[in-house]
Amino acid sequence: MTTNTTHHNETEIVADPNVPTIVLTREFDAPPELVFRAYTEPELVSQWLGPRRLTMHIDEFDARTGGSYRYRHVDADGSEYAFRGVFHEVRPHDRIVQTFTFEGMPEGVSLEKAIFEDLGGRTRVTTTSVVDRVEDRDAMIASGMETGIRESFEQLDELLDELLEELA
Amino acid sequence: MTTNTTHHNETEIVADPNVPTIVLTREFDAPPELVFRAYTEPELVSQWLGPRRLTMHIDEFDARTGGSYRYRHVDADGSEYAFRGVFHEVRPHDRIVQTFTFEGMPEGVSLEKAIFEDLGGRTRVTTTSVVDRVEDRDAMIASGMETGIRESFEQLDELLDELLEELA
Repeated sequence: MTTNTTHHNETEIVADPNVPTIVLTREFDAPPELVFRAYTEPELVSQWLGPRRLTMHIDEFDARTGGSYRYRHVDADGSEYAFRGVFHEVRPHDRIVQTFTFEGMPEGVSLEKAIFEDLGGRTRVTTTSVVDRVEDRDAMIASGMETGIRESFEQLDELLDELLEELA
Repeated sequence: MTTNTTHHNETEIVADPNVPTIVLTREFDAPPELVFRAYTEPELVSQWLGPRRLTMHIDEFDARTGGSYRYRHVDADGSEYAFRGVFHEVRPHDRIVQTFTFEGMPEGVSLEKAIFEDLGGRTRVTTTSVVDRVEDRDAMIASGMETGIRESFEQLDELLDELLEELA
């Protein structure tokens, strides 16, 4: 995929000084139905989730209430970073609530809630991640998640453009 | 079951003023293997979880990593309070990480982590619940959870006594 320069949607990342949350807000130039598909269909998820330099391998991605997921990001020298969790609730076009663990730190777990808002053909996605200690939240931010998130969302912009073209 | 007056284990409930967590600490006069069974086997869970005045009905309780659960507390006039979630991780005799929603407030979700510590034949269970807003945590406390927790743990003391007697 080539970088699409027509998008100017900004990713807002807010870390509350007291509460151990990370709140991401991002708008997409596609309707909630399509953005929701990109978040839940594994063959679409694999095309955007993760930093550009890593290859995504999905082992399991059952995005239904009660389903589980596991995927790995693999870098050029073969190092793997695996992530897993369960879907507490998947409510079509509206919300996804899931748990999230980086298997390299198996004691760490976050609860992630993505809300999809219809802006009239466009979509605002607000994702709130919470852990039980401010230090753990700060470690997540220090891990370089911001680059991964921005690149993921740019790749999602590109995927949504392709899907919109296919549907046009 | 009759109230057993030989137990003097106290339940400690801590709500951090800033971080939206509730931390429960409780010791039990039984080894971790047995306490873990009482937390994961549905026919045992149904005997202790919930306030004394409510009857427990388990619809599903698959306490394995990736499993789901749903149960209902029913009061004398037939009113039902249903709860559901998924098990992010169930690590035998060590930890249970699960999500938790009261179906009467379906937008609310907490992440609950129970850690089992071996005190040499006795067990300390530390449960940390986290939500993403301090107000929501305060609402959980205001709902009268404390009585339900203390009564649950008293019933668990009684159940563990019975199980220890059976095993003796």
